[in-house]
This record gives sequence, structure tokens and C-alpha cells, in this order.
Amino acid sequence: MRVGVLGGGQLARMLALAGHPLGITCTVLDPATDACAGAVAELIVGAYDSVDGLDRLARSSDVVTFEFESVPAASAERLAGHVAVQPPPAALEVAQDRLHEKRLFAELGIETAPFRAIGSQAELDGGPLPAVLKTRRLGYDGKGQRVLRDAADAEGAFAALGELPLILEGLVEFDRELSIVAVRAAGGEVACYPLVENHHREGILRITHAPAPDAGAALQALAERYARLVLERLEYVGVLALELFQVGDRLLANEMAPRVHNSGHWTIEGAETSQFENHLRAVCGLPLGTPELRMPCTMVNLIGAAPATAELAAVTRAHVHLYGKAPRPGRKVGHVTVTRGGDWEAAAALADAV
Amino acid sequence: MRVGVLGGGQLARMLALAGHPLGITCTVLDPATDACAGAVAELIVGAYDSVDGLDRLARSSDVVTFEFESVPAASAERLAGHVAVQPPPAALEVAQDRLHEKRLFAELGIETAPFRAIGSQAELDGGPLPAVLKTRRLGYDGKGQRVLRDAADAEGAFAALGELPLILEGLVEFDRELSIVAVRAAGGEVACYPLVENHHREGILRITHAPAPDAGAALQALAERYARLVLERLEYVGVLALELFQVGDRLLANEMAPRVHNSGHWTIEGAETSQFENHLRAVCGLPLGTPELRMPCTMVNLIGAAPATAELAAVTRAHVHLYGKAPRPGRKVGHVTVTRGGDWEAAAALADAV
Repeated sequence: MRVGVLGGGQLARMLALAGHPLGITCTVLDPATDACAGAVAELIVGAYDSVDGLDRLARSSDVVTFEFESVPAASAERLAGHVAVQPPPAALEVAQDRLHEKRLFAELGIETAPFRAIGSQAELDGGPLPAVLKTRRLGYDGKGQRVLRDAADAEGAFAALGELPLILEGLVEFDRELSIVAVRAAGGEVACYPLVENHHREGILRITHAPAPDAGAALQALAERYARLVLERLEYVGVLALELFQVGDRLLANEMAPRVHNSGHWTIEGAETSQFENHLRAVCGLPLGTPELRMPCTMVNLIGAAPATAELAAVTRAHVHLYGKAPRPGRKVGHVTVTRGGDWEAAAALADAV
Repeated sequence: MRVGVLGGGQLARMLALAGHPLGITCTVLDPATDACAGAVAELIVGAYDSVDGLDRLARSSDVVTFEFESVPAASAERLAGHVAVQPPPAALEVAQDRLHEKRLFAELGIETAPFRAIGSQAELDGGPLPAVLKTRRLGYDGKGQRVLRDAADAEGAFAALGELPLILEGLVEFDRELSIVAVRAAGGEVACYPLVENHHREGILRITHAPAPDAGAALQALAERYARLVLERLEYVGVLALELFQVGDRLLANEMAPRVHNSGHWTIEGAETSQFENHLRAVCGLPLGTPELRMPCTMVNLIGAAPATAELAAVTRAHVHLYGKAPRPGRKVGHVTVTRGGDWEAAAALADAV
């Protein structure tokens, strides 16, 4: 099978690495000539809306998928006219707009923080406060959002975020941030990974503990129910991640990612089948692999620059994943997964020291 | 780091796949334009004794290694003149000649079957019989050998094997075939994987059970002692496999492979660090990863042709590894590792049915 991927970053790279043993080869479309997936996949250099690039990708692929959700609608349509596209473009559309996303959650009975659409500075006046004000589209890793604690914070906030369509989400006093990665096969089979606990810094994921300590069966069942509702409503095929806030025994859905997800990187070592392999299995119409836990582990993101490989490799049970990307502040250049019995704090200290 | 590999088959392919996450990129030299490692590594097409090919490989690499042991001595020398070569060429020389290999074992106090050099038909007369008569050089997967049960079998055997230098090895009544994969780092650190049990058919490895059922700590310690003796004598760097016959509580060394080995493929899933990653760590001067068992598993080779991927993927806990090679009788085209709780017999039945 030949899988096309829109985007040639680390997610595409890890998809391609997972594909080779299955006899699945990936071709990626990316505007950067040095896109890091190019080391293990065929790289077509082109903009995400370039007709020529999209057509070449379609011709090189039996099915096309994505490593990011902000795919131009016209590009998804053009691809869908020539080749199978999974997950379905409708899922991208929902995930591209925080308001649509929250409305879908609400419609499905999935709890969220209170939210409201904001189209002007005046509409901010009603609250609720404290809240997070976010652009509806194109936000990621904490970009395009600001916290409004009181009325003073709200002043000029609409202009500061570019006078774009916004969503105001009530600030929730949550216990912790969790996420669940789930996958649905073409035939409807669903597999869910264990809930994990995520720690962010400056809006960027730093650490994931898998499984989430003391999550319990009821919380896992609730998260799986939520994931399944979304997957089934969207007739979804592939991996989907659901970011959640835990508040006592409740889970509030924060956002979804219609793709393999950073909080699922631990599955390469920690689960019986990785999220990358299961995404490929799903979009290629193969049966899913079991998502069962192999052993608990902690994933540490390498942000900005990677420590020396020899130092990382010296940490017991550290599994090093470098993406082949040039260093740059705030950029994810790799991750390390430390399995049970290893010293993840040592890996985190190395990551912090760079 | 840039690692050069002489040979571009499945072993080089799995080395290259293990290298990418560590930031190690491989370049392979292979005479075949469709060498299967070429999908994940830079491929230089050239004969193993081509000066131009060897020089290009040396220029592309910080260290050069091998995926097979029958490397022409002149090629190893030429490479060593330009770039670091690991494991050391002396290890290749020993492994290329069954007589030198057996003599090394004997010298180190490693038990073997009785053996004798044979240079003519006349020398066959003395026995021992029953025995296996093998060419000293270039034998693999059961080629270049014949079993001599009695004097009648011995008649004309020297001519039948091409009048080459031979070794006669007394046929041992062994309980089973085992092997141990071990790795030595540049600094002398040694790590050993658990003993595994191997089943051959027509001289080709079919199935490996890891770890070897009921091997016990004493047998493991003996195997590790033998592996360490060889590694240390040869000042070896990288992965080495030692094939052994178990006779009660004794182990007789059959042969060594100075490279990653088919009976170590299970380590991708079943060990905390795979043989491929540890070979790269060793030859690149990185600290070794722990070889500890993650979970028991069984590896099934796919010989001749691969069953449909969907059928293999449907076997619970089956991890499919296809090499991207065209089908051909007797050719290893992939393997499947089934971890504990899965149905390896189903995978073996699929492999047999093709």
C-alpha cells in the first residue's frame, strides 16, 4: 500500500517508519525541502494548496492522510476527488474550528467548559470570567489565545487577537490534563489506548505519563465513551486524540486532534501496537492491532534543541527519538520515552538543560 | 552519525530503521539496484569488491559495518584504510572459515563437537562418523554441507562439495538448537540477550522461541560466558550471535555470526533494546541499551513469499516485518513476531500455507 501524507514533519516521519515493516510506503507533501520525513519517505516539495503538489501526492498514493488539521478545505476536496482520504475531511473541518468542535461535543453529550462564540469586543462584556479567549481557527501549542482573569484583561483583547472569530471558554479549575488516543478501523472496529496525563509548559506539551496514574476504570470508560461518540458520529477512520480536563470524576473535553498525537508517542514502546502503526492499519483497511499497555512509561519532549545523544542514551531504559530537525526555540526536535524502571527525571533534566 | 553497511538486505534495512530515531543514518553498498535497504537508507550500487563503491561508502560514513560475514578480505582492508570498521575485520576472518572458528572456540575452552580439517577424499576415511561434512568457507543456510552417516555416504563426498577445503564435524545427538545474541561496546561493556530456541527446516531458520523455554540460569550463564570469551578475545565491537547445541546441561558451539542475526529479530518487540539498535549504539560509540526481556515471544520467518498482510495483521499480537523483497523459493522475505498471549501457531500456519 502507498499512503500519502499532507505534511512532512515528525508525525509523518514516525508514520513512515511504522509503515516500512508493514510494506506500506509513505509519500509526503511539504513546502520545506528539508522536511524531516523526507529521510524515510518520498518527499514532494510543494505548498499545501499547490494543485500540482496535491495531484502528484494523489497519484503516488492509494489513500491520503494528514499530520496536521489545518488543511485547506480546497486541498482536502481536490485530493478527495482523486483518491481516498482518511480521516474524512469532515473531521478536519470540525477540528479546524474550536467553536464547531465544542458544539459537536455538546451535541454528543460530551461535557465541556462553558463556551460562547465571540465576534466583537462588545460581545466579550458578558463573560463568563475568568476565561480563555481563543481564535476559533489555526491555534496550536498555546498560540492565538489569552487568559482573561477580569474585565481589565478583556479590554482590547478582541483587537489583540487580530479581530478574528473567537471563542470564549470559561476557565475550569481542573485537577489535571489528560488525553486519550483512540483509533477506528474502516469496518467500525474501535480501539482505545489508556488515558495519559500531560504536563505543558508555555503551551507546549513537555511530559506525558502513560498510563495516567490512578485514573481508574470508571474514568477510562468515560474517556472511551467520549472518544467512541466522536469517532462514530464522524464515521472516522484513523487515530484521533481527545484532550481532556479531569475535574474529580468528570472529564471535560478541551479539544480533539484528528491525527496521531504527541501525547501518543509513548505507544511506540509502551503499547503493544503504536498509534502510528494503528493509524496506518486503519487508513489502509487492515485490522487494528491491540492497543494494550506493555508497560508504563513517561515521554519527555525535546524542545528547542536535543541534548547529546550519548547523554540521552546513557539514561537507563531511555528510548531516544530524534526527528532530524534543526534546533529552533520552541520547536519539537525529538522525544525520549523512558519505560518502567528507568529514570525519566534524568531525561527531563537533560531536556531542560539544553 | 553516519554508518556505512556492506550489504543492503533485510539486516541492513532493519539497522537503518533502528538508526533514524537515534539520528544515525545509514548508507549501504550492494550490487543490486533494488536492494531492500534502499527504501530507508542511501544505496550505493556496486560490487562488494568495487574500489569505487568501497571508497564512496567510506566517504559517506563515520564507521562501516557489515550485514554478512563473507566480506572479501581486500574490501575490509581497503575500508579500514579510510574509515573505522566495526566489528574488527579479524572477527570476519575467523567467521569466514569454519575451521578457524572451531579452533578459536577450542582455544577459548568453548566446547564443540569433535572436528577435523579435510583436504582430500582420502582424509575422509578416518571418520568420525556419523558426521557433517562442510565447506570451510561461504556456507550458509545449510548450503555447502552434507551429512555422512556411514562410509558409503563418504564416497565421492569431497568431489561433490567441489574439492574445496572442508571440515568434518562429528554429528552430535543434541537436545535442541539454541543461540545467544550478545553485544560489546567500544569501551568493553558487554550485554547479552536471553538464550533462544531455534527450529530450522531445510537448513533455514523457521522459528525462534524467546527466551528458550526452561533454559535455566546455569545454561544462560554458560552461554554468556562463551559469548563474552569470544567478544573479548576478538576485541569485538557490535552484535555477535553464537549458535549452540544443547546436550543436557552442556552447550556445544556450532558457529558464530559477527553481525545482527535472524535469531535476534524478536528483540525488536521482545527486548527493551533491539539487537539492531544495540549494534548501532556499539559501533557508534554510544552506551549500550539494556537487553532485558520485555516479554516472551515467538518469531516466525516468512520464506519464499509473504502471506497477505491483512491475514498476518489479523493474528493477535502479530508484529509484521516485511522486507520489501520479491518472492523467490527459499528467500527470507519477512518475519512475524508474536508476543505473549498471541497465536504464533496461526502465524506459522499462514507462513507455511504460502
